[in-house]
Amino acid sequence: MKRTIDVCFSPALLPLYDYKGSIVVVIDVLRATSSICVAFANGVRSIVPVATLEESMAYREKGYLVGAERKGERVDGFDLGNSPFSFMDASIKNRDIALTTTNGTQAIKAADGAHSIVVGSFLNLDALCQWLLSENQNVVLLCSGWKNSFNLEDTLFAGAVVDKLKGLFDYTDHRDSAIAAQCLYDLAKTDLLGFLEQSSHRHRLAALQIEKDVEFCLIPNQTDVVPVLKGSALVNVK
Amino acid sequence: MKRTIDVCFSPALLPLYDYKGSIVVVIDVLRATSSICVAFANGVRSIVPVATLEESMAYREKGYLVGAERKGERVDGFDLGNSPFSFMDASIKNRDIALTTTNGTQAIKAADGAHSIVVGSFLNLDALCQWLLSENQNVVLLCSGWKNSFNLEDTLFAGAVVDKLKGLFDYTDHRDSAIAAQCLYDLAKTDLLGFLEQSSHRHRLAALQIEKDVEFCLIPNQTDVVPVLKGSALVNVK
Repeated sequence: MKRTIDVCFSPALLPLYDYKGSIVVVIDVLRATSSICVAFANGVRSIVPVATLEESMAYREKGYLVGAERKGERVDGFDLGNSPFSFMDASIKNRDIALTTTNGTQAIKAADGAHSIVVGSFLNLDALCQWLLSENQNVVLLCSGWKNSFNLEDTLFAGAVVDKLKGLFDYTDHRDSAIAAQCLYDLAKTDLLGFLEQSSHRHRLAALQIEKDVEFCLIPNQTDVVPVLKGSALVNVK
Repeated sequence: MKRTIDVCFSPALLPLYDYKGSIVVVIDVLRATSSICVAFANGVRSIVPVATLEESMAYREKGYLVGAERKGERVDGFDLGNSPFSFMDASIKNRDIALTTTNGTQAIKAADGAHSIVVGSFLNLDALCQWLLSENQNVVLLCSGWKNSFNLEDTLFAGAVVDKLKGLFDYTDHRDSAIAAQCLYDLAKTDLLGFLEQSSHRHRLAALQIEKDVEFCLIPNQTDVVPVLKGSALVNVK
């Protein structure tokens, strides 16, 4: 029997899915899950996703670097924000990080109880798919969206994963969202940035002048890291 | 300032939308909202959407015809199910109907508190769009989905409405779901049935041998009725 692959467009809808028996891939392409991949590619040892600013800051006493993003910007007083470029500094090597973001780290919390939780972005697309193939589990691709609302960039990435795995997983039975995501990815794949220029999130981020981040986050296969939640921390299992 | 048009993929996500100041278009293409349009096209006076079988049956004593669908089939003991063809009989003219279905009538309940609630399907596409244009309100297109999960057929219809109204409403700002729905409709519009053959809901319905219903429900502009909720009952305002 083929394993199933499904797409969930909002953390608020996750309870409708059989996610407790599945691998949940948490997707927040702009920018949390992209930045997490960059951090591991640059030698970070672990990342603890937390829900609140206070929780993140509390980790500083334990020797962690602390990261926090709200409304798209780094919160004052924190070491790191949500830009992938802030996770490229050599000083982060072998460090542990506590991180809270508006959507991505909240989605990781929503998936609590899943068989496993893994972080996906265009940056680790192929490595993620290889890892999903190697595990013998059903897959739910969880789009973080924007405060529980549907967004295009996470949907396109989910569609890219469906596109890669569709011959190997069943995605046609009761999986309309997977079909939709794959169709949208197919429309957009030759020019992801151009396609997203229509989207709201990019407008929102353009206002924050993070054009460079957006372009970077849409370039596939920049790293082979596979960040998986082990206990309370993400670690690279690749 | 342009009015906004947005698409909500699940009744469970409706609280995220500013629906209380908007017209909510309830969409359950296969088949509740299509059947409601057929009923009004055949002279029904009013339709009371109710949540439970018991509520529906209780209306019989008041002289109503009673309708109920669960798992895609008419419930034993009720006059009407959810097939558009069951609402074509001449005997329904000038009658009042109480109706409960798995998804569509539940979505009408979820939209309680909206500025107004109107019923949409391919059957009344143009009439609905004309009516939306004539009202001076923002619009939320509410896909009933299947038990709160995303489905393709309702999304395609939402996309058709966006496609018709996009020059007149703003759908680009913070409206990724509207963009997605419109893209999917654009992909599917030359062969809606063929496109939906991939979808889960159609598989489910095919198992119930309602092929004829599905084909019928995808033919646009068969009627100019506009069913709007007034108090507890839908009436045709056209």
